[in-house]
Amino acid sequence: VFPEMALAMWKNLLQTTKKRILQQRRLSLYNDAHGYEEELIKKKLLQFSGGSINLSKEDNGIGILTLNNPKLMNAFTGTMMVELQERVTELENWKDGKGLIIHGAGNTFCSGSDLNAVKEISNSQATKSMNFAYQSLLCRLPLISVALVQGKAFGGGAELTTACDFRLMTPGSEIRFVHKHMGLVPGWGGAARLVRIVGSGAALQLLGGVARVDPEKAQRLGLSEETLPSSDETRALGEARAWLSQYTEGPTTVIQAVKKVVTAGRELPLEAALRTEKDIFGTVWGGPANLQALVRRPKHK
Amino acid sequence: VFPEMALAMWKNLLQTTKKRILQQRRLSLYNDAHGYEEELIKKKLLQFSGGSINLSKEDNGIGILTLNNPKLMNAFTGTMMVELQERVTELENWKDGKGLIIHGAGNTFCSGSDLNAVKEISNSQATKSMNFAYQSLLCRLPLISVALVQGKAFGGGAELTTACDFRLMTPGSEIRFVHKHMGLVPGWGGAARLVRIVGSGAALQLLGGVARVDPEKAQRLGLSEETLPSSDETRALGEARAWLSQYTEGPTTVIQAVKKVVTAGRELPLEAALRTEKDIFGTVWGGPANLQALVRRPKHK
Amino acid sequence: VFPEMALAMWKNLLQTTKKRILQQRRLSLYNDAHGYEEELIKKKLLQFSGGSINLSKEDNGIGILTLNNPKLMNAFTGTMMVELQERVTELENWKDGKGLIIHGAGNTFCSGSDLNAVKEISNSQATKSMNFAYQSLLCRLPLISVALVQGKAFGGGAELTTACDFRLMTPGSEIRFVHKHMGLVPGWGGAARLVRIVGSGAALQLLGGVARVDPEKAQRLGLSEETLPSSDETRALGEARAWLSQYTEGPTTVIQAVKKVVTAGRELPLEAALRTEKDIFGTVWGGPANLQALVRRPKHK
Repeated sequence: VFPEMALAMWKNLLQTTKKRILQQRRLSLYNDAHGYEEELIKKKLLQFSGGSINLSKEDNGIGILTLNNPKLMNAFTGTMMVELQERVTELENWKDGKGLIIHGAGNTFCSGSDLNAVKEISNSQATKSMNFAYQSLLCRLPLISVALVQGKAFGGGAELTTACDFRLMTPGSEIRFVHKHMGLVPGWGGAARLVRIVGSGAALQLLGGVARVDPEKAQRLGLSEETLPSSDETRALGEARAWLSQYTEGPTTVIQAVKKVVTAGRELPLEAALRTEKDIFGTVWGGPANLQALVRRPKHK
Repeated sequence: VFPEMALAMWKNLLQTTKKRILQQRRLSLYNDAHGYEEELIKKKLLQFSGGSINLSKEDNGIGILTLNNPKLMNAFTGTMMVELQERVTELENWKDGKGLIIHGAGNTFCSGSDLNAVKEISNSQATKSMNFAYQSLLCRLPLISVALVQGKAFGGGAELTTACDFRLMTPGSEIRFVHKHMGLVPGWGGAARLVRIVGSGAALQLLGGVARVDPEKAQRLGLSEETLPSSDETRALGEARAWLSQYTEGPTTVIQAVKKVVTAGRELPLEAALRTEKDIFGTVWGGPANLQALVRRPKHK
Repeated sequence: VFPEMALAMWKNLLQTTKKRILQQRRLSLYNDAHGYEEELIKKKLLQFSGGSINLSKEDNGIGILTLNNPKLMNAFTGTMMVELQERVTELENWKDGKGLIIHGAGNTFCSGSDLNAVKEISNSQATKSMNFAYQSLLCRLPLISVALVQGKAFGGGAELTTACDFRLMTPGSEIRFVHKHMGLVPGWGGAARLVRIVGSGAALQLLGGVARVDPEKAQRLGLSEETLPSSDETRALGEARAWLSQYTEGPTTVIQAVKKVVTAGRELPLEAALRTEKDIFGTVWGGPANLQALVRRPKHK
């Protein structure tokens, strides 16, 4: 019975990641904190106010998430972290949601977290909980997601781009992991994700060398899918929307399933990814979109 | 004792994948079904007849597997699924086997499964078992394998190409994950494997955008190793055989070990891959091919 | 309670890899052997003498490790294996260490292990233990590491290059996995690591085809980061040092943390890599380098 027991456990523990992928949901924001501490952290965060996170849900199933704190290059304040959590929850519950564009106000992306705020709550337990919360949030980003990089994506902002499925850059924009210059390394998942996007050698060069990554270099590394033609804020947003639409056309359930099989393939070991793929397939097989397609084109898959 | 117990279990559960790699064998076809249901599914599958899977084993240790149902673009019928299982078992037991080429009859690859058959057995438990069985089969493909893509590889056919070690395309051929247009996503492991071959960004674009991938694009993405010069069916098969021979020359035990160390590296987490590599090394170290080589060239590895 | 127990175990077993990464340390050399056998193996190894492993620790935090057995193309003898273990331990304990360059004496890299020695101790248990010991050693390489490939890196020498973070090649040099010609496959982790560097398709081609990889091909495959201008031994070492310095400038604690987050990203499944990244972040957050940076540049991360 020993191997069976081990297998049963293995299946069990993989269900955390699998459940999240299948249900587009994950850990609650302050997940590793207990109820009491959770309220405390939230209260602390709300003391460091400024900026906002705005969400506009469009008819085509694409959500536009705006990081809005332009006088600090859209650096995250405490309230912005709390608001981001609320918006992500809203996106998870959006029945018609298919795609997501994250961009910054004032024609720049994001410079990470507001270190003034962070210094204030710098007792280490609170910082740890906050970082864990933010890391968890970035794991929960639902829908097929694009980071639209205008201006600068620095530090935690650079990390945020790696949590999206795609990165699009505008002319003159720049991604830069400036952590080393701040005496830091990524803590929001940016290193683990960067390794998966560009390989471990290039990741080590970007983090160790604090290299400026312009759109051309980003494409060469595989960090960006495409350089958009416009650097104008509004026009670039339109171009990003058009680019994303290529992949979000079609029935919502199918698009959400496409996102999930790819996420499973990326985040799980092969064996577990295969099982999850089978389950996701089961959610669309025989569904309305599939039945309609069979009527239209009855011959073969 | 707690960490030791956990480690013992971890080792145990990894042995499923490891054993398969070491023994070139895996789950039986209807593995997650019980004996009774297994017979039932097989019986159902055999009701949907048409086409065949032919295997020719050549003296050079290369097997040629032909998907043969040209009037349906080699779509899989029930009998073809059962026959594929038999042929794969035959390949696993082939002592002199080193390489495998999978191609389709009638100068086209494969258009997936015959959805007419699938519709008939569309009670969801049967479909699930069938998909699981097929997924398991694709995990079992032994020998250094090439998908020779002539004409079209669509849907499940595109998924089948990802289960091979290499893909070679002929001029004018095309790989296309058409699942979205059928209201579906991959379910035979095509998404999980595609992510490992081209990265998660490109995989999401191919699945979400239902892009036609011609030979040039396939090479650029890393989905194809090479474009063969000939589009003629017989000549292309000859070119594929010559290409594959570069990697299958040498003693059978060594070639099979090469396939296994790479499979372990691809499918297992690093820690487990390292241990499996050590075990595979143990199967050739001090073996006849190694001893002969030491006599010939006694100086250094 | 079942899932929680499974999760607890999962966390526990991941701690092996995680602890190694966090502490820059791993298994002891003869780890899977018991005390008595350990002494026996070491004694046996020391009977096959010749060559040495030299370490010079420079003021800039870069260590230069020289494989020194030029009359056998720097093939590993028994004493060199024992000395490598001692040098790696020394590097792990080097408080000011940031980078590491591994190169060979006599303007060539390394041709693997001295098979004459290996033949003598060819009882299979001893060989297994030795291989395991060497594999473990290569997992322990601390600091941001570069294999400087001058001349030839063959067999186990080629494997050694894959254990480094980066590979730099000089004009005319060559990496070649010659294992198949010796009736072997990699056993020191070379296959598992090569798959992670160049992908499984290219790895299978390199191992199965015993291809000569010159600097140009290596760069195209992603196996080498750069071709140095000089083939002169001393000048090339200077160029490698200058190249590496780009990534090792800065406070030691931060550079060591950068190496660790990238290693975690490369070697652990995503879920575990994220947790480890959070822990590594915790070691630099609020540390002296971070506090100084906050003073200098108080605005944002």
